[in-house]
Amino acid sequence: MTADGLTLAVDIGGTKFAVGLVGPDGRLETSERAATPSGGEAETLWKTLTDLLDGLGMPGRPAGVGIGCGGPMTWPDGEVSPLNMAGWRGFPLRARLAARFPGVPVRIHNDAVCLAVAEHWRGAGRGSANMLGMVVSTGVGGGLILGGRLIDGGTGNAGHIGHVVVDPGGPPCRCGGCGCLEAIARGPGLAAWAVEQGWSPGPGPEDDDGLYQEAGTATARRLAADAAAGDPVAVAAMNRAGRALGTAIASAVNLCDLDVVTIGGGLSQAGPLLFGPLEEALREHTRMAFASRVRVVPASLGQDAGLIGAAALVLAGESYWSAP
Amino acid sequence: MTADGLTLAVDIGGTKFAVGLVGPDGRLETSERAATPSGGEAETLWKTLTDLLDGLGMPGRPAGVGIGCGGPMTWPDGEVSPLNMAGWRGFPLRARLAARFPGVPVRIHNDAVCLAVAEHWRGAGRGSANMLGMVVSTGVGGGLILGGRLIDGGTGNAGHIGHVVVDPGGPPCRCGGCGCLEAIARGPGLAAWAVEQGWSPGPGPEDDDGLYQEAGTATARRLAADAAAGDPVAVAAMNRAGRALGTAIASAVNLCDLDVVTIGGGLSQAGPLLFGPLEEALREHTRMAFASRVRVVPASLGQDAGLIGAAALVLAGESYWSAP
Repeated sequence: MTADGLTLAVDIGGTKFAVGLVGPDGRLETSERAATPSGGEAETLWKTLTDLLDGLGMPGRPAGVGIGCGGPMTWPDGEVSPLNMAGWRGFPLRARLAARFPGVPVRIHNDAVCLAVAEHWRGAGRGSANMLGMVVSTGVGGGLILGGRLIDGGTGNAGHIGHVVVDPGGPPCRCGGCGCLEAIARGPGLAAWAVEQGWSPGPGPEDDDGLYQEAGTATARRLAADAAAGDPVAVAAMNRAGRALGTAIASAVNLCDLDVVTIGGGLSQAGPLLFGPLEEALREHTRMAFASRVRVVPASLGQDAGLIGAAALVLAGESYWSAP
Repeated sequence: MTADGLTLAVDIGGTKFAVGLVGPDGRLETSERAATPSGGEAETLWKTLTDLLDGLGMPGRPAGVGIGCGGPMTWPDGEVSPLNMAGWRGFPLRARLAARFPGVPVRIHNDAVCLAVAEHWRGAGRGSANMLGMVVSTGVGGGLILGGRLIDGGTGNAGHIGHVVVDPGGPPCRCGGCGCLEAIARGPGLAAWAVEQGWSPGPGPEDDDGLYQEAGTATARRLAADAAAGDPVAVAAMNRAGRALGTAIASAVNLCDLDVVTIGGGLSQAGPLLFGPLEEALREHTRMAFASRVRVVPASLGQDAGLIGAAALVLAGESYWSAP
C-alpha cells in the first residue's frame, strides 16, 4: 500500500517546519505546519517533525521522501546543523527519516536549493535550462540549475550567491568573510545599516513570520514600508541592497551565462524600491550580449515552494538528483 | 582511410594559429604553428589556416575536428568574431571546416574554455569534478566544469570569470562595464595602472609571444620582472592584480562549490608575486568550510593546452560536448 503514488515533502526552517504530500505533477495535495520550537533540543525538534507527519494522515507508504533543510549539512548524507537551530548539530535527519520510511528513496538538500528547484520545476524559471533561484530574507541563498540540471558542487554547497563578494572592503559577514552580498542585503543587515544612518523604525506592519526578528523591532519589513512612504534613509537602504543584489547577480550571469534569475523571500516583496536599483546595477555590469539577455523575475510559488522543491528531488531526480 | 583514429585540433588566437593531430589518449602527435596575419582579411586568415592544415601531412580523414577560437562567437554554430582579429566578423569557421572534413564531428568552443577542458582532461585539474580553469594574459578568461561536465550556459558563454565584478566602482572594462576582474588583472590593464602610478619600464626580457603588446613597451612582463627586482610600484601592481584574482575566485568558489582552480597564461608565470596576494584575498573571502577547501594551482599543459582541449571536445564529448 502506498500513499497513492504521493511523495512526502519535508521543509525544515528556523521559523517553521512544514510537511506535505506532493503528486507526480508537482501539486501539493495536503500539508501541515508548525512553528520551530525555540531553543529546542534535538529530540524535541524531532518530535515536532514526527507529530506533523502523524498529523498528515498518510494512507500508506509514500513513493519517496524529499527534504529541504537549512544549512550547513553534510551532503548527500544529510547530517544537518542548521544555523538558526542550535539543537541540531550533526543531526542525522536524512537517516532518521530513512529509518521511518524504509524501502523508498529519501533525499535531502539545502532549503534554498529546494526553493530554486521548485521555481525551475514548476515556477517562474520553468522552461529555462540555466537559472539561478534566489531567496532574500534573513539570509541570501540560492540554487543553480545549469544545462537543465541542478548543480551540486563538490560538497552539495553550490548556489551560495549570498557569499559572492560585492564590496571587498565591505562589512563583516556572518560567514567570517567581508563584503559578501548577504552582509549587505539580508534583512537584518539592511535594517542595522539604516539604524546606523539615523533611521528609527516608525509604526509598520507586524512581523507574521519571524523573517526579520533578528534585528529586533528595527525590521526590514518596516524599513520597506518606510521606504515606500518616502523616508530618505529607508530609500537609501533599499537602494544599497538592490544595487548589491544586482552586482552579485551580474557576476553570476557573466560567469554562468544564465537565462533567468528568480528572486523570492520576504525582502523580494519590496517591489520596485528593491528591483529598480537591482536592475540598474545589473545592467551596468552585464554589457556583453550574452549577459544582457538575462531576466530577473519574482519567484512565483510562494510559501509552498520549499515543499514542492523537496518533492522534486524525488519526483524529478533525473534533473535534480545526482548523488548515488 | 583515416588519420589512424587521430583527431584534428585547431587553435585560433590573436597572436598565433595552431593545428595538430591528437590521439585518443590526449597526446599531441604533431603540430604546426603560424603567426596570425596582422590586419588580415577574412580569406587571408582562412588561407593561413588551410596552409597549416596542408602542412600537417594528414594521412587521411581525421576521426573528428575540434576547434578553439577567441570569442565572441555564436555557439554551437561557430560563427566567430574574435576580438583581436578584425578580419573575421561572423566568419563561419565551424561550417568552413565541416565542409572541408565531411562526415566527421566538427566542434568548436571558446579558446579559454578549451584551455580549461584540457587542464581538466589531462592537466592540473584531472580527477576533480568541479573546476574553474583560468587564463590570465591580455584578457582574463576561463571555463567551468561542474559535476564532471563542461558548463556551456545558455549561449555557450559560461566561464567568463574575467567579468566577475571585484570593485563595483572600479575602472572601465572593455566589455562596457566597470570593476570587472579583467579590467584590473589583464596584462595591459595592470601595466597601464603601474604607469599611472609613476612606473617606467626598465630593461627587461623581450616579448616573444605578443601577449602584452597592447600596452606598447610598458608590458606586464617587464612589470613582473621589475616587481621581482623589488620596484615598489611594480610590486603594488602585482599585489593589486593578485588580490583582484583572489576575490573573483572566491566569488566563483562560494557560488559553485569548486574543488580546484587552475591558472594559466603569461601573467600566471609571475609566481609568488601574484599568487601570494591571490591566496591572501581568496582565504579572506572563502571562510565557510566547503569553500575553504579549494586549491588554486598553476595550469600544467603549457602551450599545447589549446590543441588538447579542442581535441577533447571530440575525444571526450561525453564530458565536454552537450550541443546537438
